[in-house]
Amino acid sequence: MRRATRCFRFLTVLACAVVVQAAPAPTSSATLIVSGGTVVTMDAAKRVLSPGAVAIRGTDIVAVGPPAEIRKGSPNATVIDATGSVVIPGLINTHTHAPMVMYRGLADDIALMDWLQKYIFPAEAKTVAPAFVRTGTRLAALEMIRSGTTTYADMYYFEEEIARVTRDAGLRGVLGQSVIQFPAPDAKTPAEALARAERFISAFKGDPLITPAVAPHSMYLLDKGDLLACRDLAIKYGVPVLIHVAETETEVKTSQERYQATPVGYLDSIGFWAPVTVAAHGVWVTDADIAVLQRHKVGVSHNPESNMKLASGTAPVVKYLASGVPVGLGTDGAASNNDLDLFEAMRQAAFLHKLATRDPRAVPASTALEMATIGGARVLGMDKQIGSLEPGKRADLVIVGMRQARQTPLYDAVSHLVYTTRGDDVDTVIVNGKVLMRDKRVLTMNETAVLTEARRMSSSVRDAVAGAVKQ
Amino acid sequence: MRRATRCFRFLTVLACAVVVQAAPAPTSSATLIVSGGTVVTMDAAKRVLSPGAVAIRGTDIVAVGPPAEIRKGSPNATVIDATGSVVIPGLINTHTHAPMVMYRGLADDIALMDWLQKYIFPAEAKTVAPAFVRTGTRLAALEMIRSGTTTYADMYYFEEEIARVTRDAGLRGVLGQSVIQFPAPDAKTPAEALARAERFISAFKGDPLITPAVAPHSMYLLDKGDLLACRDLAIKYGVPVLIHVAETETEVKTSQERYQATPVGYLDSIGFWAPVTVAAHGVWVTDADIAVLQRHKVGVSHNPESNMKLASGTAPVVKYLASGVPVGLGTDGAASNNDLDLFEAMRQAAFLHKLATRDPRAVPASTALEMATIGGARVLGMDKQIGSLEPGKRADLVIVGMRQARQTPLYDAVSHLVYTTRGDDVDTVIVNGKVLMRDKRVLTMNETAVLTEARRMSSSVRDAVAGAVKQ
Repeated sequence: MRRATRCFRFLTVLACAVVVQAAPAPTSSATLIVSGGTVVTMDAAKRVLSPGAVAIRGTDIVAVGPPAEIRKGSPNATVIDATGSVVIPGLINTHTHAPMVMYRGLADDIALMDWLQKYIFPAEAKTVAPAFVRTGTRLAALEMIRSGTTTYADMYYFEEEIARVTRDAGLRGVLGQSVIQFPAPDAKTPAEALARAERFISAFKGDPLITPAVAPHSMYLLDKGDLLACRDLAIKYGVPVLIHVAETETEVKTSQERYQATPVGYLDSIGFWAPVTVAAHGVWVTDADIAVLQRHKVGVSHNPESNMKLASGTAPVVKYLASGVPVGLGTDGAASNNDLDLFEAMRQAAFLHKLATRDPRAVPASTALEMATIGGARVLGMDKQIGSLEPGKRADLVIVGMRQARQTPLYDAVSHLVYTTRGDDVDTVIVNGKVLMRDKRVLTMNETAVLTEARRMSSSVRDAVAGAVKQ
Repeated sequence: MRRATRCFRFLTVLACAVVVQAAPAPTSSATLIVSGGTVVTMDAAKRVLSPGAVAIRGTDIVAVGPPAEIRKGSPNATVIDATGSVVIPGLINTHTHAPMVMYRGLADDIALMDWLQKYIFPAEAKTVAPAFVRTGTRLAALEMIRSGTTTYADMYYFEEEIARVTRDAGLRGVLGQSVIQFPAPDAKTPAEALARAERFISAFKGDPLITPAVAPHSMYLLDKGDLLACRDLAIKYGVPVLIHVAETETEVKTSQERYQATPVGYLDSIGFWAPVTVAAHGVWVTDADIAVLQRHKVGVSHNPESNMKLASGTAPVVKYLASGVPVGLGTDGAASNNDLDLFEAMRQAAFLHKLATRDPRAVPASTALEMATIGGARVLGMDKQIGSLEPGKRADLVIVGMRQARQTPLYDAVSHLVYTTRGDDVDTVIVNGKVLMRDKRVLTMNETAVLTEARRMSSSVRDAVAGAVKQ
C-alpha cells in the first residue's frame, strides 16, 4: 500500500513535468489568446495544430498548444476566436518599394527601357517628395495589412517618412535608404545618400518595429567605392544591406563588359557581403554564384510575379533551396507586379518552378508558405524573432478565413493557403502583439482617408507622364 | 420665314435620324439598365465608355451608350448603378470539369501518374454518381457566379445532371458528355457513352442556356472509330466537340509511337474536325499543327494555371494568336488548378507568355481580357451571341468593384482587371438578362446549403483515398 502511494506520487510529479513542458509557465499570464482553428506554426517540426491556440503577452508569443490547455492557463486573457479559420505566422515581403503603389497600372506591357524612361523615371522625378512618399506608404501599408503581410523590406527614397508611416500603421519594416549613382529625389550624389542613410539608421536603430538598413541600388548603378561604403555603414551599425542582384540578363552583360565577372562574382571580388545581405531577384546566377551566396549566407528575395511580368527570367529557386541559400518571397514594387499580395507570390512561386523544372513536385505548397514566412525571416536575419509561431518570438500572426466557395471542401489547409486563398481572405492581423486588423476592420489607419488621399494625389502622377505614348 | 421653318423641320428629321442611329429604337423598351461606371465593351473597336450604360430587354442587350442617353430612352426600366465600378462582358471558361471542385486540394505537388492513379481515379471510381455530380456542380456554379464567369465549357460524366444544375443556377454552359475508352462511372464502354451523349444532346438541344456537346476524352484514350463517331454525332445535331489535345509531352510520344504523327496531325489525318471543335490545352504543337488548327477553325482553350501546376508545359499562345487560331482561357478542373477564377487565369496568361517569349509586351492586359471574353466565345462558336457588350447579343455581363486598396489608384481599368483584380471583386452578375448575383448576394442558389452539402460529401472523398501515401 505504502509502496503504491509512493509510486502514485512519483507518477503525478512526472505527469506535472510533462504538462509544464507542453504549456510552459508564462502561459498563465497571457493577455491575448488566438484560439481555435488550424494553427500552422511553421516551426522546425512544421507542426500543424487543429485546433490550436496561440497565447500572447505584450509583444511576444508565450505559448502554442491545444486551445483548452492554453486558455486554462490564462482565464482573464482576451480571446480572439479563430474557429473555422487558419492561423499562420505573419507573411514577410522581402522586397518592395512601398510608395510605388502610386504608379501601379500606370504603364504595363511595354519594353523595360520604355517603361523606365517614359513612365517611371519622369513620374518619379516630378512626384517623389516627402508628402508623396507618405501617401504612397500609407496606401501600401493598408494593402499589406489587408493581405496579411506583417513585415516588409523596402528600398526607396525619403526612407524616414516610410519608417514613420510604417510604425504608425503598426507594421514591421526592414527599411533601406537608397544609394544610387544618379541624382535621386532625396540626394544629389551617392555621398549625400550615404549621409542620409547614416542619419536614418541612427534615428531608427533599436526601434521595436523598424530595422533601418542601407540599400545600394545595384552593382551596375554604383561604383566599387560607394558599394563598399554601404557595406561599411551596415557593419558599423549592425544593420542589413538590401541590394538588387542579377535581375536581368542585361545586368549580367554589363557586369561582364565592365568587370569580366557575373554580378555576384563581381560583388564577391570586392568583398561586398555584410553579415546580413539581401539580394533581390537573383535570376541570372551560375552554380558558382549560388555557392558564393551560400558561403556568405546571403539571402535571396525571390519575386516571381515581377520577374514574369517584366520578362526578366526565372530564378533557380529549386537550386537555391537545395544549396542551402535562404530564400524569401517578395512582390517587388506595385508598379511592376501590380500588387503587394504575398498569397499571389506564393502561388506564383509554386506554379513557376513546377513549370521551369518540368516537375510537379517542385516547390510544393509547404515550401511556398515556408518562403513567405520563416524563409523570409532567415533572409532578413530575423529568424530568431519572427517567421514562425513559437514561444519567445514576436507575436506577428494572421487569421485567414477558409469560408469561400473556392476554399470548399477543405482537405489540406496548407494547400488551400497557397492554391486557393487570396490576401482578401485575411480577417485579423496582429503585429508585435498589437491587433492591426480585426475581422477585416483596419484599426490603425483611416482606410477611407488613405484611399481618398491616394486618389487625389494620383492626378499629379497622371500629369507627370502625360504625353508619353505607349509603344 | 417659311424657308426657315422648312429648314428647321429638315434639321429636326436629321437630328432624329442621328439619335436613332446612336440609340436604336429598342432602347425605349429596355427593362433593365446597368448605368454608370466604366463599360469595357470588348466590341470590334474595343470601345471603353466611361461612364457608360448597358440597356437590356428580356434576354438581350438592346443598347450600349452614354448613361443619360440610354436612361432617357427607358424611363421605367430598373436601374442598377455601377458608378465607380467596371462593367465587362461575362467571363467565359472554355475548359473545366465542374464537379471536380470536390477534389480540390486533395493531392497536390505530386507526379502526374501518382496523382491520377493514387488519388483522382480511386476517388472518381468510388464517389462519382448523380448526387455527387449535382453537389459538385452546385459548388462549382456558386464559385463561378461569385467570380464573374457566365459561360463555361465542361467535360465530365452524368452531364445531364450538370446541365440541370447549371440551368437552375442560371449559368450558360457548353456541356460535353464524356466518351472514354475505359469503363467510366456513367458508361461501361465508348458505345454506351455515345448513346448517353446522344440522349443528352437530344434532351437539351435548343435550350436557351445549355448547349449540349460531345466530349471524346483524347486521341490517346479513344480509337479512330470512336473518335469519328463523336464527330459524326456532333455533325448530326450541330453541336460542338470538346477534346483534350496535346496537353503533355507524353501524349505526343504516345501519338508518335502509335501513329507516327503528332496528336493534331493524327486527328487531322482521320478527318476528325467538326464545325466547332474545342481543343483543350494545345501545349505541344508544331508550326504545322498550328496551321492545321487555323485551317479547320479549331479553337484552343488555354489553361495556364493547370499547365503550370501540373508541369505540362507552355502553350504557344503568341503563335496561335499571330496565326489567327481562336484562343480562349480555361481553368481546367479545380483538382488541378485549384480554383475556377478566370481573373487568375487572365493574370497567369499575361505573366506566363511574357516570361516564355522574354518580351514584356506579349499578351498585354487587353489580350488577356479578350481571351477571357470574345476570344472564348469564338472558341465555342458563340461569338454571335456572347463575349462582348453589343446590341443584339445576350445580356451576359458582370459588374466588378474597383474599391480595394490594391486597385488604388486607378489609371487604366483593363490593366487593373487583369493585374490587380480577383474574382471576389465581382459584385453583380447577369446572364441571359437575369440577375444571378446582386451586390455579392447570390440570388439563384442557397449559398449556405451548397457549401454545407459539399463539406458533408467531402468525407466520402477523404475515405476513398484513405491509405494513399503522398510521394
